[in-house]
Amino acid sequence: MLQQLSAEELPKVEKEIIDFITNYTTHNELKKSMLYSIEAGGKRIRPLIVLATVRAFQKEITLPVYQTAGALEMIHTYSLIHDDLPAMDNDDLRRGQPTNHKVFGDALAILAGDGLLTSAFQLISETTLSATENVLLIQLLAKAAGIGGMVAGQAGDMTAEKRHVSLTELKTIHHGKTGALLTYAFVAGGILANQTEYVLERLEKLGAHIGLAFQIRDDLLDIVGTTEELGKQVGQDEKSEKSTYPALLGLEGAHQALTDELSQAEMIIQQLAETAEFQPQIFTELLTLFALEK
Amino acid sequence: MLQQLSAEELPKVEKEIIDFITNYTTHNELKKSMLYSIEAGGKRIRPLIVLATVRAFQKEITLPVYQTAGALEMIHTYSLIHDDLPAMDNDDLRRGQPTNHKVFGDALAILAGDGLLTSAFQLISETTLSATENVLLIQLLAKAAGIGGMVAGQAGDMTAEKRHVSLTELKTIHHGKTGALLTYAFVAGGILANQTEYVLERLEKLGAHIGLAFQIRDDLLDIVGTTEELGKQVGQDEKSEKSTYPALLGLEGAHQALTDELSQAEMIIQQLAETAEFQPQIFTELLTLFALEK
Repeated sequence: MLQQLSAEELPKVEKEIIDFITNYTTHNELKKSMLYSIEAGGKRIRPLIVLATVRAFQKEITLPVYQTAGALEMIHTYSLIHDDLPAMDNDDLRRGQPTNHKVFGDALAILAGDGLLTSAFQLISETTLSATENVLLIQLLAKAAGIGGMVAGQAGDMTAEKRHVSLTELKTIHHGKTGALLTYAFVAGGILANQTEYVLERLEKLGAHIGLAFQIRDDLLDIVGTTEELGKQVGQDEKSEKSTYPALLGLEGAHQALTDELSQAEMIIQQLAETAEFQPQIFTELLTLFALEK
Repeated sequence: MLQQLSAEELPKVEKEIIDFITNYTTHNELKKSMLYSIEAGGKRIRPLIVLATVRAFQKEITLPVYQTAGALEMIHTYSLIHDDLPAMDNDDLRRGQPTNHKVFGDALAILAGDGLLTSAFQLISETTLSATENVLLIQLLAKAAGIGGMVAGQAGDMTAEKRHVSLTELKTIHHGKTGALLTYAFVAGGILANQTEYVLERLEKLGAHIGLAFQIRDDLLDIVGTTEELGKQVGQDEKSEKSTYPALLGLEGAHQALTDELSQAEMIIQQLAETAEFQPQIFTELLTLFALEK
């Protein structure tokens, strides 16, 4: 079900992003740089969550859904480009390919990131939804991606290197760095499916658990995964003395924390299933993406 | 009149920006970095144009005006922070003070820029204007700041270094790099003053001329100005073999081009003065800011 959604609908999200960039960019190298990172692929987990949420509430997936999902993927992609820069994580490899700045240089990578970030808001502003819905989707995206969300998480992640942080602090960093955008994916899906405030709150909680699960899994894979499997260099966290779940809780403790987050997510899915028009199956499938073993 | 507007009203724009950053940031170093560049001052020409436009149409300056003007200044400030980075123009001095990355490091400077850019859209989304007006102001800002506007201009500026560009190409670069945001300032002022499509088109043309005038003046000051006067290093363009108006047209030709742009701006102001509720005086004063001699 999720597999089918991914195969049939994600290409339409990608098309919205690529068409937008191609139509609006007036600078050719900038366009190439943005498209390079967009077309590098990845699991498209954030747009997939938007689509899955709309589908779970048995609503039709319309153009504004593709556009909102596309805007979210633009934000995610910009954050990867900037995060990989030498001044930040200094990564050479991303999704099995050279990082943006390795191909286009640091300056164009910075501008490609700035361009994708700005484009995300323009893309949502141009949907055929009501102005009220557009403003809400823009506002929540800016909050999730901004100085109380992802950007703050990135700053926290950076300043947490080479010093001990508490589990509480680590959770705050992860909530910003990864959780905020994943939460947005669920909530935006709920808004696009015309759900009530009560349901949107459940989706927000679900996103928070999934966000932590995602980050714990990512931390674990940096230890137990391989460069070939992941398409990026492993062992980087230990090398940079980064604070991670395994560093704080040990391997077993981190595995347990991952299991706990996924159990709590499962409970929320069961709560949502009490809402008549919600079909839990696609969300249950979604959870398997965040487990360590497939 | 402009002096009074600047002295009385600009502090309220600054307050909106500072309050927004202080209320929303969850990371202390990130906050300091953003506030450092916002509080470094500068002429605040873009928010001043927004205020002046609303005032010229004899409308009251309300909270949404301060917020929109503040969002625009956030975008401008982010662009300076990123532009000054070692990977871009590599400037050590801005507005007479060390640039953001010299104080906070490259990583936090990148994130401060990303944060200000994202915050601008959130700030507008939160005004008390109608959702339709908010979406329009957001959409036009994203267009002006984005991949068909400022970001494209920055990319063009960068790739134009160390090679000959035509006057047409130079105008395109300048239109994106400087003109797009200045044009937005006039048009946003017009929207906030509830003006007609006809008037908004005149304001757009006015912004284009002012934008070119601004850039030609900036190019000229890099040759005839001093580091003390400008608060930034002069002679940088020649050092980096940058394509500029003086490089293409000679000093005298560049002076003439500046005069031409200002004359055309003056003509549009006279056209606007035929609109009953428009008072040209404040715009005529505004023009003097873009002349080389004060």
